[in-house]
This record gives sequence, C-alpha cells and structure tokens, in this order.
Amino acid sequence: MDSSQFRDAAHAALEEIIKYYDTVADRPVLPSVAPGYLKPLLPPGPPQTGEQWSQIQSDIDRVIMPGLTHWQSPKFMAFYPCNSSFPAMLGEMYSGAFNAAAFNWICSPAVTELETVVMDWLAKMIGLPECYLSEGEGGGIIQGTASEVIVTAVVAARERIIRRRLKDMPEGEEKLDKAAEMRGKLVALGSEHAHSSTQKAAMIAGTRFRTVPAPPEAGFRVTKEALRKTIEECRAKGLEPYYFTATLGSTATCAVDDLEGVAELAQENPDIWIHVDAAYAGSALVCSEYHHLCTPMQHFDSFNFNLHKWLLVNFDCSAFFIKKRRDLTDTYTLTPSFLRNEYTDKGLVTDYRDWQIPLGRRFRSLKVWFVLRSYGVEGLQKFIRRHITLGEYFHGLLVGRKDLFTVVTGPAFALTTFYINPTRPSAAVSSSPANTPNPAHEAYTNDFTSDAEAQYREEANRITKEVYERVNSTGEFYLTGAVAGGVFVIRVVSATERAEEKWLERLFEVLVEYAGDALKRDVKGGRTVEMVDG
Amino acid sequence: MDSSQFRDAAHAALEEIIKYYDTVADRPVLPSVAPGYLKPLLPPGPPQTGEQWSQIQSDIDRVIMPGLTHWQSPKFMAFYPCNSSFPAMLGEMYSGAFNAAAFNWICSPAVTELETVVMDWLAKMIGLPECYLSEGEGGGIIQGTASEVIVTAVVAARERIIRRRLKDMPEGEEKLDKAAEMRGKLVALGSEHAHSSTQKAAMIAGTRFRTVPAPPEAGFRVTKEALRKTIEECRAKGLEPYYFTATLGSTATCAVDDLEGVAELAQENPDIWIHVDAAYAGSALVCSEYHHLCTPMQHFDSFNFNLHKWLLVNFDCSAFFIKKRRDLTDTYTLTPSFLRNEYTDKGLVTDYRDWQIPLGRRFRSLKVWFVLRSYGVEGLQKFIRRHITLGEYFHGLLVGRKDLFTVVTGPAFALTTFYINPTRPSAAVSSSPANTPNPAHEAYTNDFTSDAEAQYREEANRITKEVYERVNSTGEFYLTGAVAGGVFVIRVVSATERAEEKWLERLFEVLVEYAGDALKRDVKGGRTVEMVDG
Repeated sequence: MDSSQFRDAAHAALEEIIKYYDTVADRPVLPSVAPGYLKPLLPPGPPQTGEQWSQIQSDIDRVIMPGLTHWQSPKFMAFYPCNSSFPAMLGEMYSGAFNAAAFNWICSPAVTELETVVMDWLAKMIGLPECYLSEGEGGGIIQGTASEVIVTAVVAARERIIRRRLKDMPEGEEKLDKAAEMRGKLVALGSEHAHSSTQKAAMIAGTRFRTVPAPPEAGFRVTKEALRKTIEECRAKGLEPYYFTATLGSTATCAVDDLEGVAELAQENPDIWIHVDAAYAGSALVCSEYHHLCTPMQHFDSFNFNLHKWLLVNFDCSAFFIKKRRDLTDTYTLTPSFLRNEYTDKGLVTDYRDWQIPLGRRFRSLKVWFVLRSYGVEGLQKFIRRHITLGEYFHGLLVGRKDLFTVVTGPAFALTTFYINPTRPSAAVSSSPANTPNPAHEAYTNDFTSDAEAQYREEANRITKEVYERVNSTGEFYLTGAVAGGVFVIRVVSATERAEEKWLERLFEVLVEYAGDALKRDVKGGRTVEMVDG
Repeated sequence: MDSSQFRDAAHAALEEIIKYYDTVADRPVLPSVAPGYLKPLLPPGPPQTGEQWSQIQSDIDRVIMPGLTHWQSPKFMAFYPCNSSFPAMLGEMYSGAFNAAAFNWICSPAVTELETVVMDWLAKMIGLPECYLSEGEGGGIIQGTASEVIVTAVVAARERIIRRRLKDMPEGEEKLDKAAEMRGKLVALGSEHAHSSTQKAAMIAGTRFRTVPAPPEAGFRVTKEALRKTIEECRAKGLEPYYFTATLGSTATCAVDDLEGVAELAQENPDIWIHVDAAYAGSALVCSEYHHLCTPMQHFDSFNFNLHKWLLVNFDCSAFFIKKRRDLTDTYTLTPSFLRNEYTDKGLVTDYRDWQIPLGRRFRSLKVWFVLRSYGVEGLQKFIRRHITLGEYFHGLLVGRKDLFTVVTGPAFALTTFYINPTRPSAAVSSSPANTPNPAHEAYTNDFTSDAEAQYREEANRITKEVYERVNSTGEFYLTGAVAGGVFVIRVVSATERAEEKWLERLFEVLVEYAGDALKRDVKGGRTVEMVDG
C-alpha cells in the first residue's frame, strides 16, 4: 500500500467510521452473536498474497460489526462509559504514524516532553495539590489502565517499605531472606467495594490482600474508623499493612471513601502507601464543585483516573500522578550500563520507563493534548455537568415511582443504583396514583434480621435480576447489575457523548413495563452480565 | 467537533501524515532539541474554550516535529526497528473508533474472537508447534510489549511452582507463610545478554534473578551446559530456579540461545518455566528457512515476539503464545461474583483479562489482521528477506575493509556488530590496497590476558565509541552501541520499511571517513546513547 493507496483507503475508512458514529444510536447496543461466531467467517490462515483494501474493508461490516458491543451508543449505560471522541481519534492517527518504542527521552523527546506538559495541565485543571506537578518532586505519567497503575503502585509500595525497614542491613543473603520474610507479612488493603485490581495487584506483588468493610450504613464508603480497625487487626496478627487503595467512585455504586479521614491516618502511618483510584469519577474533578475532593490528596502518595472513561480520550489512557517520583524510580530503575545515556545520566530528562512496568511507550499524550484543546476547560466541564444532570433526571424518574423502585445509591457522578420493589404488584401496573411509596421500603435498608426482611430481600433480588436480564436480552439498552450489601441492584449510568434525556426516558418506560410484568410473573431468559468491574 | 468537521480535520491530518512518510528519509533522523525544549512552546495550562483543528494541527509542525526521533526513517539503524505501515494505521483508526474497554467477551465479542483467530494465523505462519494453537490447550494473546509479556510469564511461573509444591497443604496461615518463604528462594534466570526486562520482572515478582553466562566463545549464546551449571549452582545454595528466558535474538548481538539444548533441560526440569523471548528476531520466523527454530518450542511454556518491531504492525503489539493457557488463568483469574457472566461461567468464551495483568484491552487484532491480509504471507517474507540481504550487504562492506573494521557478530537477522581496529592508522586512510586485514585481529577475540591485548582493547573501545558518537551527533544516521564481552561495538541494523542499499552505502562511507579521522586524532562531542535495550 503506497501513499496514494493509503489516502484512498483512509478516506474510505473515515467515511465508514463517520457513518458508524452517525448511526450508532440506531443499532442494538449489544450484539446477538453466539460464542465462536467469528471463526467460521474467516479462512483458516492468512492469504498467501496480499489483498486489496476494498476486500479487507468490506469484511468490517461482514465480520466485525455483528460482534461489536457499542460503547459509544447513548443506549450504553453499563459498567462505566468508555468515551472516544473525534479529536482523540486524530491523536491516535498521529501517534500511529510517528510510531516509536519511546522508552527513553532520546528515543523521541517530544513523546516524553508533551506527556509531562499535558499531565501538568491536567493536574492543574482538576485541582490536584501542587506536590503532584512535575516542577517539584512529583509528576504525572500516562499508563494504560487503572489496573496497570495499581500494580505499579503496589509493587513500588512493597519495595519502599522494605527499603525503609532494611536500610541499615548490608546487602547480601541475609537481607534477601529478611526481605522475603517481610513480603510474606505485607498486606495490601482496599475497600470491599474497590475494584478487584487491588487484589490482583497484591497477588502479583506476592503479598496478602484484605478488604476494609464499607457497609451500606456507611454509604459503602471506607471510613477512617474502619480503616484504622483493619490496620490494627492486621498488626495484631503480626501482619504489616503497606498499601491502601482509597476509592473515589467505587465500582458498584460510585461511593467515595472518607478521604479526609484517610488523610489523617496517612499522616500517622507514613509507611502505608495511599493510592486514590478515581478511575471513573476522577474526570468530574474538572468541575470546580468537585475540587474539594482533591485537598486531602496532599497527604497521599498517588492518584489516578482514566481519561478513557469519562474525559473523551479513547482507550487506553489512565493518568497516574505521583507525589514523589523517586518512590517509583527507586523501584523501577535498572542501572546496567546499556541503559545509560548522557541525558539520563545528567538527570536532565525524564525517562518514563522508570515510572512503569513495561519498557516501550506509545505517544498517548497527543490525544490528551488534542482533546484538552478541542474542548477547552469549559467544554469538558459542560460535558461532565450534562451527565450529572442526566443522572439527576433519571433519579427523579425513579423516585417518581416509589411504588416500583427503591433507589439504593445516587445519583453519584451520574450513576444511580436501585432495585425493584417486590411487593404490591398491583401498584406496579396501575397508572395512577403512581407515586405511592412502598411504606416498608421508602428508603434503602439492608436490615435482613427478620425472616420477613430476608424473604423480602430474596424476592427483590430475584425480580430485579429478572428485569435486568430482560432489558439486556433485547439489546436495546445495556445495563449492568451489582450486588451491594447483599442487595442486587441495577446500575444506570448514562455518560456517553451522545447521551440524551430521551434515552433515559425510554429506558424508564421499559423498566416500568418490565417491572410490572415481573411482578405479575417470572421473566425467563436474557443475557446476564453481573459485572461492574469496568 | 462534529462528523463533518472531523472529516475535514482527518483529511488534513492524513495529508500531513502522508507527507511525513514521503519525506521522512530527508529529515535528520535524530532531533537536535535540548532537554526541556517543548514546555516553553506551550501555554501553562489548557485553553479555557475550545480551539479549532487548524490551530491545533499547525502546532504539530511547530511543537512536535522538532522533537521527534524518526523511527520510520531508512537512516534509523539503532536499537531494533519499530515499523509501522499504512494497513496498521488503518487498523488503529478503526480500533480508536470502536473504542471499548473490552475486558470480557461480552464487552465486545469481536475483539476477543478476532484476536484468537489472528493469533492462530500467526502461530501457523511462523511454524509454532500445534500445542500453541487455541484449538488445544494453548493459544495466543496480544500484549503491549515484550517486557509486559515477561512480567506476565514470570509471575505465572512463580505461582505455578508454588501451587505444585504446596498443593497438599491446607489453605491458611501456614501455607501463606510457606509460600512467602518459597518465593524468597526462587530465582529467575536469563542470559547475560537477555533483555533487562527479565531482571525487572523478577524484581516485580519479588524473587531473585541470576544471569546465565553466554560468553563470546559460545557466540554470546546460552548453552545447555551453561544453563545446567547455573541451575545446579542455584540449587547448591538452596535456591530454586523457576523461570528461564531463552533468547531468540539477544539485545546486543541477536544471538540465539541453544534452544535444542535448553529443550532437553526443560524436559528434565518441568517446574522451570521456559519462555522464549524473540522480540525482534521472531518476525523472521515467517520465512520457512527459520522454522526449524520453532521445533524445540514444543518443550517450552511460552513464546513471544513483537510485531511492532519487524512485522509492520505499529507499536504496541507483542504476540504472546502459551502452551497451556491454564498456566496463565490459574494465576490471573479472580473469581468474585461481580466477574461472572453466563458465557464465562459455561467456559464458552475466552476472557483474555485472565491471561494478563491489566483489565481492559484495546482492539489490536484489527491491525494485525489488516497487515497479514494486505501483505499476505509472501509479502511479509519478502519484507524480511530484503532486510536479511541488506544485512549481508553491509557485512560485506565491512569485511571488505578488514584493515579498518572487525566484525564481532553477524550478520544475524540483519544485525551486524563491529569495532574499529585501533592500530595501523595509515591503512585507515590509505585508499589502496584497502582490503588488508589487520593481522592480529582478523577475527574477533576477547582474549585480553596479555597487557598488550588489554591495551589494544581499550584503544579499540575508545576509538569505536568516538566514531559512534560522531555519527549520531550529525543526526544523519542513528546507531546504537553495545558492550559485548568487554568489547564496545557499533550495532547496525537496517530493517525499516524504507531501508535501501544506498543508505547503508552512505553510512559505510561515513564510517570509513570517521574511522580514518579517529585513528588520526580524537573526535570530541556527540550524542551517546549506549542503549540497546529496545
């Protein structure tokens, strides 16, 4: 494919992409293919000789399109969103063209330097304390995903505490043995509602993991007291907590841990690395009304949020900020001779390879730069606030039918979770008066102590799950469910670029209809994706 | 930016990208910017309101272009190549458009299923033993980089040996302590010339690392005997080797470890996970003349090569093949309820999240699919063989001036390493007879036992480094140096898509000239990048 063929091919591809975006709302959001659908559509191996682009492109529609889940659809309200945008796509175009394995500064200085600049822009924009700026001892790096960030932080935390505790021991066998023994007693902590990546990271680091309770009565948040108690329990068993993921927007309900309380504990426990995972909700910090959430972060060690979720930079782009970059480089820098160059030796440049696990790096800052400039701060604020408003709107619809629905959490960062009230089926289908609250369940509770309560809960879970599965089975909307405090809830978060009130209205109609049906009879079938770990 | 503005912007960006590719050979391959050049070119924060694409695009030329190292230039002969191609860029375009955090099958079935298919295509194309195909117990996954792959393999290897050894212990405190104690005695092994990522991975896994000697007299390869000796030495100290990176194309010289010998040891040591890192050279396996290298792999556990180096798929794309996928999923699968869905529960689908460290995944199989189809098997073979021939051509030029140059290794997979002979400066600048070998150093040796030899070596290293730095300082060519067996060598590998004989001819002229000058006097200045870890 020469330049001229590429021009033609790219123009054709662009038209297809534009058409896709212009029609994405009309497609069923979930594909209807069965597992294994794709293989029979393709030959058993690559062609012997090259094919023309037109042949290849026509297979997008035949082979790929039927198997896509449309995350850019306004009817996608599952997990958390994964927003792309046209400026971000332009960034990817250049990044693919300026292709390099940019592991060191000299491997392409623009890759490193633009990243440092846009990470500082972001830090300022979301009101992160100054200690996270590159001018001081901190700075930001783009990594792929929150899960990658968390492994990076967990391993660095493990090594930091070992360095500190064993700093007076001479190098050698005894120290290695002591470090291994220490690792065996280290415990990483995370909210019971934190993303499972902390648990996975602790396993990768070869250390233990323990959850910190965050019960419904605490709003699914980790409180200072709960964290302190967990730390003390660990220590009483001879274990050493060395890391805690504080959650700013938990997976199931978008709960925010008591960051101010955690900050107080952080100051009493300087050897515990506190990382704040704001994978989804962090994007809301571009709005000044959320900036106060950043104040406690001066007492923490690191912070991340995924621009690929809610800030219009396509996947992958997780912004990882560190207060003391040496906490990363002390762990990840290898110093064999072949890694040396004069710029690094003189400390003139940042080598992001020493801030991360992999070696090579893509030019991801381009897409961040394009998005920040195309939208501007105000454009991004508007984008976020529109979804916050949509979340409130949907919440309003639910509380308008308290006979049918009980809101469990939210609206929090555009996410509302709720269940279907199992009793009073007649109310569910009556047209008026619709707004009669279920007297026993006007507000959410997980007090299952009585038999009656337990039975009620079981019934609510069953019916809610049925409705949820039926919604997904049609492919019209895509939702996810979650279990929070023993309660099966439906999560609705409408935060894609094409999100509009009308889709929430339509979803609500569907929910009312299906809830009414479910209260009358069992609904069978449907696609279950009980997964909120996105 | 709406669809129509995007069309205009993308067309403009495409024209710039096409122009870049059409002119990349004319640009100095290395930028001349100083560290910190970029920040003053940009405002201190993002704009308050959005900017037009034309404003943004014009900054590519002003801000980015001066700081790019041109890895697509035919004058880029450093590290190993990082080839992009037009079909791969089309793949990235679609991938960015179909943006999803595709961590599960249902999150976008096409993402998972196309990946399985193209990984099987690749495995067949390079002659991997059938055990690596998805139809059996194995399969392939696309990860970002070889370094990511190696961490993934090392941690899985650590957990596999612990599972095996402690399988009869009941779960509990005692088992956790025993596992920690075991981890402290585990040793990951790699050739002394293996990429540093194995050492970094061992650190991340919290285990030890030890190199296996691969001296010049063994051709910088790990032999069966050397590996056996290292294993035995570890065991004699009470340590447990659990992982070995066998190298198919080492970083400095593209040496290939004695894979057949390693395969024999592998059968005697089933608890040592053998991973073959063929990051660069693996692409050559598309040519049948290299298929024999794959035969021993039936006895190994995993294998990877980077299509983003030498197979025209832009960064990042490392193909990771595993013989028993359970060796990955047994370690990386977490089973909390919120990860469940009916497809996964029934074992009907592959969830690649359980084959890797991060959660989310990009749609990278699209670009692999496009490249395999655009070039076809024959096109890719032609691409590789052209570079092999270029490597032989350059090697021929060097041996044509044995008075000036001593080849240390190669040509191996298009890479030749050499040094400048320090003696007989008169010969270096004499025009004829040029082809007089230096009698003492017709062939490479690292026998530095005598004082004269040591002095000779020191002088050779100094002069070679000078020449190397002078070449890079002009920005006309980009080379890397390496230290192999105490010898500083210049590495030349011309394997970009635009590589041509004429550039090697020109480089050779430059080398002859600079070598002649260096033999007469010191050459000062220049940019040193003594780094071959790419």
